Amino acid sequence: MAAPPLPRAPVSSSAAAASPGVRALLLLRVGGGGSGRCAGVAAAAAAPGWRRPFPAASVAARSAGTTPGEVAVDPKVEAILDSVKWDSKGLAVAIAQNVDTGAILMQGFANKEALATTISTRKATFYSRSRSSLWTKGETSMNFINVHDIFLDCDRDSIIYLGKPDGPTCHTGAETCYYTSVYDALQGSKPNQDRQVVSTLYSLEDTISRRKEEIVTEGSGKPSWTKKLILDNRLLCSKISEEAGELNRTLLENEDESRTISEMGDLLYHAMVLLRVKGVRMEQVLEVLRKRFSQSGIEEKASRNKS
Amino acid sequence: MAAPPLPRAPVSSSAAAASPGVRALLLLRVGGGGSGRCAGVAAAAAAPGWRRPFPAASVAARSAGTTPGEVAVDPKVEAILDSVKWDSKGLAVAIAQNVDTGAILMQGFANKEALATTISTRKATFYSRSRSSLWTKGETSMNFINVHDIFLDCDRDSIIYLGKPDGPTCHTGAETCYYTSVYDALQGSKPNQDRQVVSTLYSLEDTISRRKEEIVTEGSGKPSWTKKLILDNRLLCSKISEEAGELNRTLLENEDESRTISEMGDLLYHAMVLLRVKGVRMEQVLEVLRKRFSQSGIEEKASRNKS
Repeated sequence: MAAPPLPRAPVSSSAAAASPGVRALLLLRVGGGGSGRCAGVAAAAAAPGWRRPFPAASVAARSAGTTPGEVAVDPKVEAILDSVKWDSKGLAVAIAQNVDTGAILMQGFANKEALATTISTRKATFYSRSRSSLWTKGETSMNFINVHDIFLDCDRDSIIYLGKPDGPTCHTGAETCYYTSVYDALQGSKPNQDRQVVSTLYSLEDTISRRKEEIVTEGSGKPSWTKKLILDNRLLCSKISEEAGELNRTLLENEDESRTISEMGDLLYHAMVLLRVKGVRMEQVLEVLRKRFSQSGIEEKASRNKS
Repeated sequence: MAAPPLPRAPVSSSAAAASPGVRALLLLRVGGGGSGRCAGVAAAAAAPGWRRPFPAASVAARSAGTTPGEVAVDPKVEAILDSVKWDSKGLAVAIAQNVDTGAILMQGFANKEALATTISTRKATFYSRSRSSLWTKGETSMNFINVHDIFLDCDRDSIIYLGKPDGPTCHTGAETCYYTSVYDALQGSKPNQDRQVVSTLYSLEDTISRRKEEIVTEGSGKPSWTKKLILDNRLLCSKISEEAGELNRTLLENEDESRTISEMGDLLYHAMVLLRVKGVRMEQVLEVLRKRFSQSGIEEKASRNKS
């Protein structure tokens, strides 16, 4: 769900000079008798959080220096905004990353106002250099990136928006904007939205998916252990049980660390084949684990359910 | 292992004017009677690859337009370099990401020469704006980032170096440069290198590790299912077997997708507790899976070993 739009002051040609705009954003006029919460903060407080949301009360705290009807942002927010090393144009690199998969979704730039907006609304917001204006990813497509945490790098000139996308991030409809592999291109392949930048777990998931597709398109075709597992549920389940037992044995019989690594690899692979047969993505599993954490701690929940 | 340094031409004050430097890099003089491979390409060919390494022969192919003793780069490399939308300073954002965990390690900028160097040496290389020179991450610390693939975004103005770091990436000794959480800071926490930007799987791993540390520092303390599992190997192993059986049941008894998601979450969590007891990190498991893939395909290897 989109957060209600926040008032936006015109941004001057140099984004560095945006402090009046930031001030307009940070000093939000509230109606008489209201709760003292601005819309953005309310949205932040309501957002499902991997991390505890930043307490609305401290954002909404009235400061002595503001005129009646104005709500001042916690000076800590301003201190963070001021601590970023904005470049000569008032910008810093802002990278959006999927909290569950770690996939880098897109990269843009943020100015002070964009970062302030992201902090308060928890919707990834950038400064569009071509349009010279703020831009909340999803404001047109509704594919917002719901920000769970924001990280600054050691130099304070690079920002990560760690969040959950509502849908594809790229304007092309691809999940991420990064689907052009340089080495594939050098081997003559055209960019392929199915060949996105992914870390090992999701590369494995892709490979398993391709094997399933090959069964449909090519029949038995080239022999493959994955295909064999996909076609034989009883074999697949017996392998999962077997690999779980072998993983356990590395602990109970005090086997080498390298055995544990290898057996966990086997268990993970076979379990991921089962996920594919059931049409489940690893991202869904991780999302469930994240929510268990953020609700009550996985241990407590597991303890209630299982013991 | 570090790749032998490549010759570097001086870079002019505007990185955009670096094409003579790029040409010096791309036209590498080779000794008479040599194999025709430059050091960088040899290093690339030897690098353990998630993706097949770019064929050395096509990089080293002699073109009719070069003078004797020079080796021309495949025009495809030049075409890719030319396809990037370098900014007015000749730069594009370059993000280094861990191939196994998906962690964003650092962000810098690349010019044409830096990208060309990364393509050929497979060591993540940037253009340092403060020093106005190329900079291969690790050239001082030896903590290189070994690049397995390079991705361009849809706009061709942002680059991901997907690679395996030899050690900590940050100059502070932290694994990544991103360890300052904005929301933590707003709650009064100081930046903490143990609280880095991580996706769900590694956040879960961190939580399990903290529970293990709490047992050491606090004894039994606050009740926790994770602590109970860590302290009782037989309970832990019985839970792993049980969860594997429950995951299997969702397939064999055609249970809802949501059951599969939940049971896989349970299995993954319990197996990760075992990893922690054995002192194994998930990254090590994923590295093994990646290597199985890149060697012969996991299916074929699994087939040879298991059936």
